[in-house]
Amino acid sequence: MRLTALALLLVLPTLRADEGMWTFDNLPTKKIQAKHGWAPDQAWLDHVRLSAVRFPGGSGSFVSKDGLVLTNHHVGHHWIQTVSDAQHDYVKHGFVAGTREQEVKVPGLALFTLLEMENVSEQVEKAVPAGADEQASAKAKAAALAALVKEQTAKTGLDCQPVSLYQGGQTWIYRYKKHSDVRLVMAPEYGVAAFGKDWDNFSWPRHDLDFSLFRVYENGKPYAPAHHLAWTSKGIGYGDLTFTVGHPGRTSRLETVAQMEAKRDVTNPLALRGLDRMRASLRAYAVQGEEQARVVSDQLMGVENAYKVVTGETDGLRDKVAMSRVAAAEQDLRAKVDADPKLKASAGQSWAKVEEAVAQQKAGAAEASLLGAMRSEILGGAIALHRHATELQKPAEQRGPQYQDEKALAGLKARLVRIDPANAGQEPFVLQGIMASAQQELGAGHPMTQVLLGGKSPEAAAKALLAGSKISDPTLRKVLVEGDPKAILEHTDPALVLARQLAPKLDELQKKQQGLQSVISEHLTRIAKARFAVYGTSTYPDATFTLRLSYGAVETYPLAGTLAQPFTTFAGLYDRAAAWGPKAEEGSWALPPRWLERRDKLNLFTPYNFITTNDIIGGNSGSPVVDKRGELVGLAFDGNIESNAGRYYFDARVNRCLSVDARAILEALDKVFDAKHLVAELTGK
Amino acid sequence: MRLTALALLLVLPTLRADEGMWTFDNLPTKKIQAKHGWAPDQAWLDHVRLSAVRFPGGSGSFVSKDGLVLTNHHVGHHWIQTVSDAQHDYVKHGFVAGTREQEVKVPGLALFTLLEMENVSEQVEKAVPAGADEQASAKAKAAALAALVKEQTAKTGLDCQPVSLYQGGQTWIYRYKKHSDVRLVMAPEYGVAAFGKDWDNFSWPRHDLDFSLFRVYENGKPYAPAHHLAWTSKGIGYGDLTFTVGHPGRTSRLETVAQMEAKRDVTNPLALRGLDRMRASLRAYAVQGEEQARVVSDQLMGVENAYKVVTGETDGLRDKVAMSRVAAAEQDLRAKVDADPKLKASAGQSWAKVEEAVAQQKAGAAEASLLGAMRSEILGGAIALHRHATELQKPAEQRGPQYQDEKALAGLKARLVRIDPANAGQEPFVLQGIMASAQQELGAGHPMTQVLLGGKSPEAAAKALLAGSKISDPTLRKVLVEGDPKAILEHTDPALVLARQLAPKLDELQKKQQGLQSVISEHLTRIAKARFAVYGTSTYPDATFTLRLSYGAVETYPLAGTLAQPFTTFAGLYDRAAAWGPKAEEGSWALPPRWLERRDKLNLFTPYNFITTNDIIGGNSGSPVVDKRGELVGLAFDGNIESNAGRYYFDARVNRCLSVDARAILEALDKVFDAKHLVAELTGK
Repeated sequence: MRLTALALLLVLPTLRADEGMWTFDNLPTKKIQAKHGWAPDQAWLDHVRLSAVRFPGGSGSFVSKDGLVLTNHHVGHHWIQTVSDAQHDYVKHGFVAGTREQEVKVPGLALFTLLEMENVSEQVEKAVPAGADEQASAKAKAAALAALVKEQTAKTGLDCQPVSLYQGGQTWIYRYKKHSDVRLVMAPEYGVAAFGKDWDNFSWPRHDLDFSLFRVYENGKPYAPAHHLAWTSKGIGYGDLTFTVGHPGRTSRLETVAQMEAKRDVTNPLALRGLDRMRASLRAYAVQGEEQARVVSDQLMGVENAYKVVTGETDGLRDKVAMSRVAAAEQDLRAKVDADPKLKASAGQSWAKVEEAVAQQKAGAAEASLLGAMRSEILGGAIALHRHATELQKPAEQRGPQYQDEKALAGLKARLVRIDPANAGQEPFVLQGIMASAQQELGAGHPMTQVLLGGKSPEAAAKALLAGSKISDPTLRKVLVEGDPKAILEHTDPALVLARQLAPKLDELQKKQQGLQSVISEHLTRIAKARFAVYGTSTYPDATFTLRLSYGAVETYPLAGTLAQPFTTFAGLYDRAAAWGPKAEEGSWALPPRWLERRDKLNLFTPYNFITTNDIIGGNSGSPVVDKRGELVGLAFDGNIESNAGRYYFDARVNRCLSVDARAILEALDKVFDAKHLVAELTGK
Repeated sequence: MRLTALALLLVLPTLRADEGMWTFDNLPTKKIQAKHGWAPDQAWLDHVRLSAVRFPGGSGSFVSKDGLVLTNHHVGHHWIQTVSDAQHDYVKHGFVAGTREQEVKVPGLALFTLLEMENVSEQVEKAVPAGADEQASAKAKAAALAALVKEQTAKTGLDCQPVSLYQGGQTWIYRYKKHSDVRLVMAPEYGVAAFGKDWDNFSWPRHDLDFSLFRVYENGKPYAPAHHLAWTSKGIGYGDLTFTVGHPGRTSRLETVAQMEAKRDVTNPLALRGLDRMRASLRAYAVQGEEQARVVSDQLMGVENAYKVVTGETDGLRDKVAMSRVAAAEQDLRAKVDADPKLKASAGQSWAKVEEAVAQQKAGAAEASLLGAMRSEILGGAIALHRHATELQKPAEQRGPQYQDEKALAGLKARLVRIDPANAGQEPFVLQGIMASAQQELGAGHPMTQVLLGGKSPEAAAKALLAGSKISDPTLRKVLVEGDPKAILEHTDPALVLARQLAPKLDELQKKQQGLQSVISEHLTRIAKARFAVYGTSTYPDATFTLRLSYGAVETYPLAGTLAQPFTTFAGLYDRAAAWGPKAEEGSWALPPRWLERRDKLNLFTPYNFITTNDIIGGNSGSPVVDKRGELVGLAFDGNIESNAGRYYFDARVNRCLSVDARAILEALDKVFDAKHLVAELTGK
């Protein structure tokens, strides 16, 4: 009776890592074959690569011969919002185009398919003249790369984009086909796409129908992609091999231990204290009444979300076992670099140089965090105006590059005038956050604190600035931007007065930060090149929001004292909704009415979400999950909360990718959305 | 849309504690009234107290006028096993008596109802002669209490039991009615009563139908209790007030901080290392084959369970915020004691005395842990035999009390001969654990390690002893126990040879431990009396496996990045079973066949398990959960994993009591077990 559980217990700790976000030119096929008994061939790889598309900030794939594209609801969210209006709230109520004519063109949305990749490292390196110093070398390489991109674009008509991998170790040009006519086909209600809202964000077991469907058109007709993923005919099971194909955004796994420790000890705690203060002031506002609570609920949830991410990352950095592995890897590379005279000459000092710069960053972190004052519409706006005026006071030839170009200058001026009304609700809390941060992180005696607070409490100082400054008035801004810069430099608006006092110090801080960052970048590149020389490309580069493949299997993990279930079903969705009782009706676990009405039509035990060991990160959202057949079995939409440590390292024991099961999408399209035409198109029937 | 979630966020951190396992004479009614807007009156209290019963190691309640008793399956488990045989495995397959004639008498099972409680503190204190020292005083009080118990037993015909509360601060006599004819009426299958087995133990969301039904008989007829709990007519909802009535076994909340720190830093880590070693050797055995895995699966699960409990307790002791509250409470009491000359004289030094004794316990903890050698059938048996022989060598009047009494001596001899065959499978691992513990905790150079290992590895030493000793043969034991003690003292059996070398040191260790323990007990009593003098009985005593009432409400808590759902439903049960796919068929989440067959008969959204803030601990298992009406709404069966810290303190933020919903019991009896007669009896229809 207990054998399975026992077997799991024995298997879990020895699970080998399905680590890596691999480029399509460099897959660890032997490793995949050895662990999973199967590995993809070139035809399979070409097929899934050419079926994949890139969304702004996310991923997707072609899933029908008529150009239907599948992505997450949360990747499509912004675009669904774009085509909604007060009468047609497609986010809240969902959307189904009953015919192709009803499909809604999405202005501004473009998708990209990666057709070709070319390693141009040699060509770029060749451009460096003999004896060039570091700076001349960098300039020559940039020029050579830009020329190559321009030449290829002209030649191929494709969208050619340079890609730097392994922190400068390799330079590629990726050639994309761009799809600019994209139309909304179907979106479920937000309440079911993001069931559990920000609470359930990153959690597991999960119950999100986080998908949406778009269609690519070409010349006014549905586009016929050369490749699209066939919908699974049999589904996926516990233990099965899976691949995710998508665009992971950013990892920092090749940072040095000194950098990670600085985040663990200084930067992240600083950020968390800031979020804490922001949360406290938002809560204090929210408890004043229902309307106040409504107004700040989005901000509060945003703060909670950021808190989860940074806490997860920090917990990961505090994990001694995992971090000792990171440190051991660094030691191994350093030893190998030291043993090779050439590598030692180029990179032997680089870890120490990074550590030195990081130590300075740490020492200045609290002051540097005040650079965030830019986020304030009033204070940041005033500082930008002040800088603009200061620049204009200079002789024309000494001004920045933006002032040398008519078009750029016009853009800058437009930006200086523009006020985003969406920020108005946030401004009081942002200002108070800046004041409180100065007081608590720099101390009351710090010159910048004294300037900012002027002897008041953070609350009072923020309120006074908010009440006294007219700088968020676009009319005033227009007058100032178009008038004599002297007017700005002598204006008595309290925000401009503050800006005058703060700007020199902030400029100095920014310059210092940029200097430190350039030292770090330089030496990270040297380390990256050394790593490349030592280990070759048997490793994978940090994520760069370019196409990658990760592999893994449907697998449980230890969770809250027991084992995480590998799948959820519709029954679990309704269970969690029912669990909260009537209070869910206005809450995060409330289901849209049609979901309650049609519950009994559904096969409740259809697999709904599942977890795999695939190594993904933000940007992978919307990645198709495919099986050995190259069929679409799921749609990646999140990582579990433990996966936040994935920014720094992959922990196979607990890092899991969360996906919507392909079978759930069909079941919902059929039984809830009455979209039998889409079921037919997706299944090719 | 997000208001509820937001409201929760605002409410959670300010949740006031529903702390306390309160005696029925001393309820914080004002506090309950203030927080929940309602508090029980005397009639309500009498009703629920007289409806409650005590099981061996657990709790239960009368739930029909015909003496039907409800408890957990895991409280009844041993007794269900007792009346099972190879042909009738009521644990595996469940049991339903279709008629009263089919109800199965359970030999040895007795239940107790608490009829009366009397505070005899004064009478007992009165017995102390003027000027008596500590020892004489204790003796006089014990004698007075024994006389009172004897007198009351004779007078009332009830089962009278002395109860020491507040670590000696109060002495009571509790008078029980004993029910000795108890019959099994109904038990679900183990696979649904303990769905998720040891994996899901302590976890939430949970899906256990952890109940069983017994009936009390008197004079061969169903007993008609004066009070029984009516079954809920409307169920319980999120936020509703609940009470649990039961017998919490043991808490250590009034221990000193020094004691808790010793557990955190020394005793618990030592225990966890021992469990780690045991787990490793069991796993190494299990991987040899399927039969080997089967043989040790129960032990392995037992080790896992212990690991969860000790880890949970230790995590609780490591929680800095919670422990700083514990320390602050101790400081408050110490300050108040120091400010009162009388209290200072009696208890002012007690914390330091406890700390001193604890420091010695810590220093000797590794050696003391070897006293666990007694758990070994071979080594412990040999040591017991050696002690017996040593005792018999003494002049009769110098022997221990057991040797002064014919009956006691016969009992001792019987115990020395008895071998529990159930232990045979464990013995190799227990022995190896002792050897490994000596080597790793005491070091290879320690005299006891040298004696135990004789230069071998732990594995080899355990194997040699197992192969070489005949001491687990009952025939040999009988010969030795009944023969000349000299034969034992000169026997060449390797276990007896070891016992001869180890016993003097073990005796010395045991004596030292007992001495330290008596110092600690003495001063804990002084502290307890001082606490009593300072705070009165506005607090509750540590749990003593006597009847207590705790109160709380159905409430969520922060769990794995989101909020725990307050209820589960049958849909959640089937969701989790389905989640594991075919692999669950032989695993911990496999449902009994009838549950799969009858799934569609059930209303899947019937509430199944729920969580409340009630303060419970082991022994409370089987406690009825009642509402304001005094109706039964649930059946407490577990705490969440965070509640393991409840041994030391109550953390209202995360400590939750897990209960089976009364509605789920009816739904299952009706739809799965075809027990409409029981539904009718429970609902009084």
